[in-house]
Amino acid sequence: MNKSNKRSNQGSTPFNLAGLKFATCCSGTKYENRDDLLLIVLDPGSHICACFTTSTMPSAPVIWSKNNVRKTQNLKQKLVLLVNAGNANAFTGKQGLIACEHKALALSNLFQCDIKNIFFSSTGVIGEQLPHHKIIKHFDLLRCELSDSALEAASNAILTTDLKPKIYTKKFKISGKIFTISAIAKGSGMIMPNMATMLAFIFTDFAIDKKTLSTITKKGIQESFNRISVDGDTSTSDTVFVATTNKKCLEFSKERRKKAIDSFYNELKFAMIDLAKKIVMDGEGASKFITVRVKNAKNTYRARNICFSIANSILVKTAIAGEDANWGRLIMAIGKTRIKLEVTKIKIYIQSLLVCKNGQGVDVVDELSLSKALKKRNIDILIDLAEGDREFTVWTSDLTDEYIKINADYRS
Amino acid sequence: MNKSNKRSNQGSTPFNLAGLKFATCCSGTKYENRDDLLLIVLDPGSHICACFTTSTMPSAPVIWSKNNVRKTQNLKQKLVLLVNAGNANAFTGKQGLIACEHKALALSNLFQCDIKNIFFSSTGVIGEQLPHHKIIKHFDLLRCELSDSALEAASNAILTTDLKPKIYTKKFKISGKIFTISAIAKGSGMIMPNMATMLAFIFTDFAIDKKTLSTITKKGIQESFNRISVDGDTSTSDTVFVATTNKKCLEFSKERRKKAIDSFYNELKFAMIDLAKKIVMDGEGASKFITVRVKNAKNTYRARNICFSIANSILVKTAIAGEDANWGRLIMAIGKTRIKLEVTKIKIYIQSLLVCKNGQGVDVVDELSLSKALKKRNIDILIDLAEGDREFTVWTSDLTDEYIKINADYRS
Repeated sequence: MNKSNKRSNQGSTPFNLAGLKFATCCSGTKYENRDDLLLIVLDPGSHICACFTTSTMPSAPVIWSKNNVRKTQNLKQKLVLLVNAGNANAFTGKQGLIACEHKALALSNLFQCDIKNIFFSSTGVIGEQLPHHKIIKHFDLLRCELSDSALEAASNAILTTDLKPKIYTKKFKISGKIFTISAIAKGSGMIMPNMATMLAFIFTDFAIDKKTLSTITKKGIQESFNRISVDGDTSTSDTVFVATTNKKCLEFSKERRKKAIDSFYNELKFAMIDLAKKIVMDGEGASKFITVRVKNAKNTYRARNICFSIANSILVKTAIAGEDANWGRLIMAIGKTRIKLEVTKIKIYIQSLLVCKNGQGVDVVDELSLSKALKKRNIDILIDLAEGDREFTVWTSDLTDEYIKINADYRS
Repeated sequence: MNKSNKRSNQGSTPFNLAGLKFATCCSGTKYENRDDLLLIVLDPGSHICACFTTSTMPSAPVIWSKNNVRKTQNLKQKLVLLVNAGNANAFTGKQGLIACEHKALALSNLFQCDIKNIFFSSTGVIGEQLPHHKIIKHFDLLRCELSDSALEAASNAILTTDLKPKIYTKKFKISGKIFTISAIAKGSGMIMPNMATMLAFIFTDFAIDKKTLSTITKKGIQESFNRISVDGDTSTSDTVFVATTNKKCLEFSKERRKKAIDSFYNELKFAMIDLAKKIVMDGEGASKFITVRVKNAKNTYRARNICFSIANSILVKTAIAGEDANWGRLIMAIGKTRIKLEVTKIKIYIQSLLVCKNGQGVDVVDELSLSKALKKRNIDILIDLAEGDREFTVWTSDLTDEYIKINADYRS
């Protein structure tokens, strides 16, 4: 593994999972002096499921993987996942899909597995053909380097404009048995549900059937990756893969099974929320981590729409970047949803300080305390609609001139 | 009129309209050393109509004026319009409406007209109480200074973050008679249909009944102000007023009347498009004027949605700011609308250069020509969906670090 230019993971050493191996290298397709190609191989008997971007212009790897996830994988064979950073292989027409086919044939030969056991993710510039020959010639090397302790290297190899790698790793107990989740993610721009340019690869040894895993994966994504936004732009490449090696089984009754699945779901959701928040914290040019919560709404739809209208408002994001308690922009963002509200009932809190109620600003608001509170890295915005009992939360970042610099110069 | 800090209008001297007078002064409510209060008085016999923001959090002046526009004005009396810059009087509760009442009572006494003949616009910070007493004490002075040749001063007094005043003035002939339109506008941030923080005041002497004027005003706005976007944020204060002094009548048959109204509509629309474009050109921190056109769509809804998705994408706007022909971001913006398209039919042109077709980039695209073309101030993006015969156009600006600076520091 090429170590120069590697961004360090500030967490502890990630937990390995038996039956899960990684290898990385520099493909020579885009970046120099850093690894940008990641091979992941899971032992036979593993299950994999995934959720993909809602973009109507999905990348070739999304089309490919979506198609394969629907099929029943050959459980007697390995599962193979290949990820490259720097080129999204999106809007690349037939050639883009041919690139996937070529890579899949080579991997199928190398690992003696069916094509339907092979999955891809690509992230990077849209619209450039993927030089798949350059990638394929590294496969032998990658196979030789496969290691079960290379999660950190893996987390680095999938990054694009990210400043930090994103790793989640935890051991947890269910019914007295210890299980592991280890996961990596990337993403810091083009971030908006449904999932934006983000990739996440979540692995566990908790044995679970594919159908149930798929159901709880979707549910978990609604509570995590679909609640973040950096710039309101949705990518053509977003994918969350969740895979289990099925190495650790629990023997139990139907009733105990439900409880165990619930416990596992909570662990999975926790991992997803952690990674989702890490993506926001690493938002391009971001200086603030913002939690927008709408509570006491008539229904979740209203709460969700108001959350995202605030989280995606350039004016709100720039005000927070400037540490300016300009709550008028929150009003603007609420107003533009066109959701009819009883204006006089709304209460708005910034950093737990009430800034407006009864349809107007609060006279007693202590601007100095507010200014001070806004200097913190974590900003909490709470909107109380006082019309029901539903709520929603969205995590986002502020918008700084650094974001503009990163994105104006992205391709150059 | 306080002339220091005045921003100059680069056009020629605006045409005066008989029966239309302006006066400006520095109110002392927000700005120092510049006029921020504008009084407009129209002779008895005038008609006024208006369109307002769709925000569900409209400002007090919007609530006030919307209510008055619906009423039948007293034609024997003057029409009075008061505009202030620096304070939007939005989300100011009952006190905000009381401020309008106080101002209206004072103006009603001063100009001997009914309350229903009085209209307000305010633009600036949301959520701060308007110090209406400070404003009212300038009314006598303003009345003394009323002049029919102060359109340029008027155009300056309504600005907030604008760099330039926005004036439109034209004489035109209908059925051999000469008419005039003279208009002013402000706006450069929080710009998104339906109308954003923009104010426009359009005046004519073309005699026309209120109902017809109202109908063509709405129609014209759809073709102009509702086709622009700077940052996708909709303000609480947007208003377009269109007023006629009714000083110049045409005597004609029913058939000739229709033709004359059509001619006048074209002139009005032209004025609105001109002002709308001027707002975009003066977009906060903008370095580019971008025209996004979707043609050959199945219906206008699809064309419109794709236009705005592109125009509001932060990633598209930053790429153009960086003069980067990153058309992949156009694909991203089209994809995130979730409108199902035949991807292989789509053609995308930047500056008239074909950059993609058949679901992928065009091999022969001359990156050098494209880079050179992107250095121009005016950028044209054309999406040909090849699925129908409908089209839509949106005008927008790029997003630069200057925008962030302006908006992070707005209140300070």
